[in-house]
Amino acid sequence: MELQGRHLIDPNDLTLEEIQTIIDLGLKIYNNPTNYAELCKGKILGTLFYEPSTRTRLSFESAMLRMGGSILGFSDASTSSVKKGETVADTIRVMDDYADILVMRHPREGAPKLASQFSTVPIINGGDGGHQHPTQTLTDLITIQYYKNEINNLKVAFCGDLLFGRTVHSLLKTLSRYPNMSFILISPPELKIPYHLRDEILQNHNVEIIETHCLETYMPEIDILYMTRIQKERFFNEEDYVKLKDSYILNREKLQSAKEDMLVLHPLPRVNEISYDVDQDPRGKYFDQAKLGVYVRMALMALLLGVVESC
Amino acid sequence: MELQGRHLIDPNDLTLEEIQTIIDLGLKIYNNPTNYAELCKGKILGTLFYEPSTRTRLSFESAMLRMGGSILGFSDASTSSVKKGETVADTIRVMDDYADILVMRHPREGAPKLASQFSTVPIINGGDGGHQHPTQTLTDLITIQYYKNEINNLKVAFCGDLLFGRTVHSLLKTLSRYPNMSFILISPPELKIPYHLRDEILQNHNVEIIETHCLETYMPEIDILYMTRIQKERFFNEEDYVKLKDSYILNREKLQSAKEDMLVLHPLPRVNEISYDVDQDPRGKYFDQAKLGVYVRMALMALLLGVVESC
Amino acid sequence: MELQGRHLIDPNDLTLEEIQTIIDLGLKIYNNPTNYAELCKGKILGTLFYEPSTRTRLSFESAMLRMGGSILGFSDASTSSVKKGETVADTIRVMDDYADILVMRHPREGAPKLASQFSTVPIINGGDGGHQHPTQTLTDLITIQYYKNEINNLKVAFCGDLLFGRTVHSLLKTLSRYPNMSFILISPPELKIPYHLRDEILQNHNVEIIETHCLETYMPEIDILYMTRIQKERFFNEEDYVKLKDSYILNREKLQSAKEDMLVLHPLPRVNEISYDVDQDPRGKYFDQAKLGVYVRMALMALLLGVVESC
Repeated sequence: MELQGRHLIDPNDLTLEEIQTIIDLGLKIYNNPTNYAELCKGKILGTLFYEPSTRTRLSFESAMLRMGGSILGFSDASTSSVKKGETVADTIRVMDDYADILVMRHPREGAPKLASQFSTVPIINGGDGGHQHPTQTLTDLITIQYYKNEINNLKVAFCGDLLFGRTVHSLLKTLSRYPNMSFILISPPELKIPYHLRDEILQNHNVEIIETHCLETYMPEIDILYMTRIQKERFFNEEDYVKLKDSYILNREKLQSAKEDMLVLHPLPRVNEISYDVDQDPRGKYFDQAKLGVYVRMALMALLLGVVESC
Repeated sequence: MELQGRHLIDPNDLTLEEIQTIIDLGLKIYNNPTNYAELCKGKILGTLFYEPSTRTRLSFESAMLRMGGSILGFSDASTSSVKKGETVADTIRVMDDYADILVMRHPREGAPKLASQFSTVPIINGGDGGHQHPTQTLTDLITIQYYKNEINNLKVAFCGDLLFGRTVHSLLKTLSRYPNMSFILISPPELKIPYHLRDEILQNHNVEIIETHCLETYMPEIDILYMTRIQKERFFNEEDYVKLKDSYILNREKLQSAKEDMLVLHPLPRVNEISYDVDQDPRGKYFDQAKLGVYVRMALMALLLGVVESC
Repeated sequence: MELQGRHLIDPNDLTLEEIQTIIDLGLKIYNNPTNYAELCKGKILGTLFYEPSTRTRLSFESAMLRMGGSILGFSDASTSSVKKGETVADTIRVMDDYADILVMRHPREGAPKLASQFSTVPIINGGDGGHQHPTQTLTDLITIQYYKNEINNLKVAFCGDLLFGRTVHSLLKTLSRYPNMSFILISPPELKIPYHLRDEILQNHNVEIIETHCLETYMPEIDILYMTRIQKERFFNEEDYVKLKDSYILNREKLQSAKEDMLVLHPLPRVNEISYDVDQDPRGKYFDQAKLGVYVRMALMALLLGVVESC
């Protein structure tokens, strides 16, 4: 398997074929988990969380345990040797003896990349600063695949904080590599997608982008609505925030004009940008998305570890 | 098994027959642990500790590991998504994908109850504020069963802080459901059992209650002496504390007038309310109690998971 | 096996024959790990870290997981019952029900010794204050055995902080029990080995000691160079520190006069006392040392647990 022994730092490390391999295996495991319950027996996942992230860490840990493997690690840099001034490179050269695969979350951009240059075992980037979070992107993609059958010819709207949102940037860049995609970028002017990213996507790919500040206008056309959290502190003044905050709360009323089979996704945690009344709407798939995230991580780790011959 | 898929939030969630089922299975496992060493193979316990409690957490973790299952979770809310403002309901809807059974400790009363309304897997209350701690009660009950053979016709004394002690309230309410029980409540006046609880027990059940401030008076009659810690800060003035503190320290001398087969129990941690010289007395069973607590938790989880056909 | 059920608090608890038994088993596991992958199935390691030490904790956890066992514990006293005022003795009497073997790191000298007096399961000292760290010594010894084939007739240099370094004291005392050893102690005058330790070694053993402040003088004679970190705050004045700090940084240039088969060891974490250019030199064995540390801990735990009949 060509993925064996590789690292995953950036979604761009993977070809679309490789992504498809991971997604397909993830869905196979999802449909028949007992077949894979011993796949990683004797394997150890090391979780190196230099900043806390319960959800990402536990998703990986659950994925490894559900394949019969074991877990060790730390969930907080304050209890790690980093306090004694050790470099990431040195930590990795020890940790790769303790575990067979490592997932690293780090507040500094590029730390997992650096780690991968010193590790003898696969390193997965579990989020580095505002930079990349490739397994969130894989989670988003497996969810789209599961509900839409293929990732092709879709109108995907991103709503909320498009300026700082690492998740949005990663997914947007990756989706723009797929055929026939168009994007609706919904945000207040203060939180628009960075120019360089928009230009990168537009120049390199045959995609369509619409930028708007209004959530409702394009609702009837959207296939996938990807919501993100807007943080009050990102606004320049209180007045702007008060004016805008309600426009970006998705509720059941606003969903009335949407397609029957639109998907509402969210990387979670949700604060108040999706009302609780959407939870009962069949279009709200954000919790299913979190669940599928476990399976895509199972597939990813199994492939990087080389414990499956083929998918 | 009728316990499969259920939650345990409050000891009152269980009938006396159900409690007996759990205790009987716990003792069977205690007597022959190797028979049950693979009972939970492939199952994952998630420990959601929004406030630290090493003893309770590790007791559950040991219980799951000793049945061949796995564990994941967090031991401190400061490393969890709660910091980002996520509700308990949302956290549970993700966590129930990561684990097959969850134990939750939370500083807020009612949080585990709320969690159980959103969870697709069994939730066990591992202590919520000053409210309930049902597996401590099960631990107390299995210990009484083990040493007294049945929970019937016993004179049980509770000594120490009866006003704030969650453990005492839970056990007292549960024991009052058993036949022919009588209770001696020993505390300083400032730390008497709350009226409403006393009245609830007296009105609903055919039990006898004696309230006293003296540890020694009834010593010769007691079958089970349940000690708790008295915290200095609970007293209204230093003088009262100094006056009383020594009366509630159990030592070997005070045990001289007690029955040969009286049990001394304590939920632990003990600070100084039981002298170390009692540790060597065969009546001191508080460490055996902690040990039996692992087995009753094994039984409880096995039954909630439905991995045993019958006990 | 005579090691079954024993504690390891101080390297002196072990005879040289017992150390050899542990090392030999460690190397057997290293050479054929799959033979031992189920050795500790059903066994639980409890990690009681009253102060953080990621490296030591994870090395033990990896060792237990690689033998098919399980792990539980705490990595920080702030989340343990110690906060409620419980004594180490009481904590141990509960923890020994939760696990089959315990490793304890504690800031207070003697705490693991005390714990061992109350525990019904083996206790391993994972470091107590500035006192002992016996599994680091075993790690150092297995590395010397691996690369030198026997621990005999070696010239071992220790360089850096010889006054406060627990690791150095432990290893030096243990090596001085082996035949035909000589030691070169390289440090600034402020950080010389304590008199009592030097005298103890010189009086009790037929060993040779040279004390010097110069790293280069004896370089050509050294078989093993054990580097340690010099902490700026240990110096009496800035001037002395600036003067000395560079003399104790090992780099490739200084290695030119050394034997081809000299070993450079370091307990890690390294800060800057070994330049990164030494990492590529075949003599730099500090990361191999960390790796071998996992295997010697596997052997130690297997023997204390009595799960191997003979080595």
